[in-house]
Amino acid sequence: MKSERIALDHGSGGEASAELVERVFLPLLDNPYLRELDDSAVVSLNGGRVAMTTDSYVVDPIFFPGGNIGSLAVHGTVNDLSMQGARPLYLTLGLILEEGLAFQDLRKVMEGVARASQESGVKVVAGDTKVVSRGHADKIFINTSGVGVIPDSINVSAANARPGDLVVISGTIADHGISILTQREGLGFQSPLISDSAPLNDLVSTILDVSPDVHVLRDPTRGGVATALNEIAGRSGVAIQLYEGEVPISAPVRSACEMLGLDPLYVANEGKCLVILPKEYARPVLKAMKRHRYGSSAALIGEVLEGPRGRVLLRTRVGGTRIVSTMTGAPLPRIC
Amino acid sequence: MKSERIALDHGSGGEASAELVERVFLPLLDNPYLRELDDSAVVSLNGGRVAMTTDSYVVDPIFFPGGNIGSLAVHGTVNDLSMQGARPLYLTLGLILEEGLAFQDLRKVMEGVARASQESGVKVVAGDTKVVSRGHADKIFINTSGVGVIPDSINVSAANARPGDLVVISGTIADHGISILTQREGLGFQSPLISDSAPLNDLVSTILDVSPDVHVLRDPTRGGVATALNEIAGRSGVAIQLYEGEVPISAPVRSACEMLGLDPLYVANEGKCLVILPKEYARPVLKAMKRHRYGSSAALIGEVLEGPRGRVLLRTRVGGTRIVSTMTGAPLPRIC
Repeated sequence: MKSERIALDHGSGGEASAELVERVFLPLLDNPYLRELDDSAVVSLNGGRVAMTTDSYVVDPIFFPGGNIGSLAVHGTVNDLSMQGARPLYLTLGLILEEGLAFQDLRKVMEGVARASQESGVKVVAGDTKVVSRGHADKIFINTSGVGVIPDSINVSAANARPGDLVVISGTIADHGISILTQREGLGFQSPLISDSAPLNDLVSTILDVSPDVHVLRDPTRGGVATALNEIAGRSGVAIQLYEGEVPISAPVRSACEMLGLDPLYVANEGKCLVILPKEYARPVLKAMKRHRYGSSAALIGEVLEGPRGRVLLRTRVGGTRIVSTMTGAPLPRIC
Repeated sequence: MKSERIALDHGSGGEASAELVERVFLPLLDNPYLRELDDSAVVSLNGGRVAMTTDSYVVDPIFFPGGNIGSLAVHGTVNDLSMQGARPLYLTLGLILEEGLAFQDLRKVMEGVARASQESGVKVVAGDTKVVSRGHADKIFINTSGVGVIPDSINVSAANARPGDLVVISGTIADHGISILTQREGLGFQSPLISDSAPLNDLVSTILDVSPDVHVLRDPTRGGVATALNEIAGRSGVAIQLYEGEVPISAPVRSACEMLGLDPLYVANEGKCLVILPKEYARPVLKAMKRHRYGSSAALIGEVLEGPRGRVLLRTRVGGTRIVSTMTGAPLPRIC
């Protein structure tokens, strides 16, 4: 490995994270499920397909506009399952608490878990709590793991993008990451920057009702849209071209990104999904998405090309084209 | 709540943990699955019964005689599923790493995960890694969550103990907790104190092959045998009587407990199970257990009585009887 010690970058969801998986985890734990490297695994249980996923949440601060670490954890796991085309059903909740955490804060976090669980209709069925002494954790870390059933008709995968497919995003990008960063840095903006954290299972149902033939679903969390599309381009052996002028970004997020020197394509989202699907379904799906609470600013933002394989290209507003690479370095730690 | 802040005791698996569940988690997240309060939930998936469980591991030190935090995490989740009578199948792995953790240490932990996964035949199918900055976690925390299928013929629950049943333990008690404590405190003993951390799925299969009519299976982890039996007595509305002289304890563990002033009945085990079953099956089950690698020192240690309901009684070596209560205070933090 590049270094002999774990760096923040290894948890960024970018190149260093991928290196850790390739060099440490896969060689030791190799099996066909893990090798898929999707955000959730697809296993067979009682004769049907079940999606399984896990995520740990270490977001700092634990309360932010639009949610808290508890609602974020539930949304994240609901969304990972939804991105496999699964109907999320049951979650588990693992808490690591720092000694001295205020009960009121724990209760508020758990209210976030409860609200998110109710809205998404996904039940928390088992839990575990550990406490470590002061200074050995930071307030609260949450793991959510979950399962969902994949209907027989559905076959979505990051490896399924095909030349000619179109790329849709369910709304404005970079809202979550910018909300967390500005909270953390104590930056004040005139209009509040609100996380997009939301459960996408109902939106995904709506999409799959219109077109069961969706090829790829992906929530662009850590590493943002750029990293998610690079993974898809690599796994599918295609190129993906984005139209810069079509990518929806709210004005305050755009200003904040400019001020902070961040490219919104690399900033985390927690309530958005990328949909890659055959051209003929793009219009009806987009129309249905726009009617949904969590898809009102959905937009057609790109297309899938034959090559150069594994590349993401950005057609800029002024007509040029540049390569959009996977995130390297400059991690935004503890964004989720 | 007794205090307005989280204390180490809230993660001990004893009374304060139970209070947290009753007063914060259940009121907010109430559902029939969670209300069972077993170590794993039983849900219906694709028409069959599936056990789901989650556990976070924060053990300190992360390496100890007999295992490491990685093997412990896999064994713990395999065992929680096994205690529902489930055949454990798939695990997920959520890592929280502290910036600066040595790669060699991560690799050794993951080798522990791999060995435990291979021995138990349970596959790690999905994973997630987060990194927090130095001083915001302690080396490595691991969450393992898992699923397993419960055969139709099996119906074990902490609520199923019946008067007349006998109580079997699969081997010597307190080995894990004492191993961790002596490592942590830097205490030297002539013979090394080795954790009993082990996967119990094969032993449970052996037991259920001999007697599918087992009433209760339980691994006495945090809080030890005393806390596990109190939970069972409470859930089943019965009394459980233990015979002090029959409880197997190794000589070095007994010495260490005396030196440290600990009651071995309250010390954690990570490779033992309690089996409560109708009297007529006790002998054949015990015989089969003794032939198994992880049951060679199995022993019949008690019986279930009608009352006093919810109580655990200890018949002492000298013939007296005393009440064995749930663990209160004096937590042993970060034992798993």
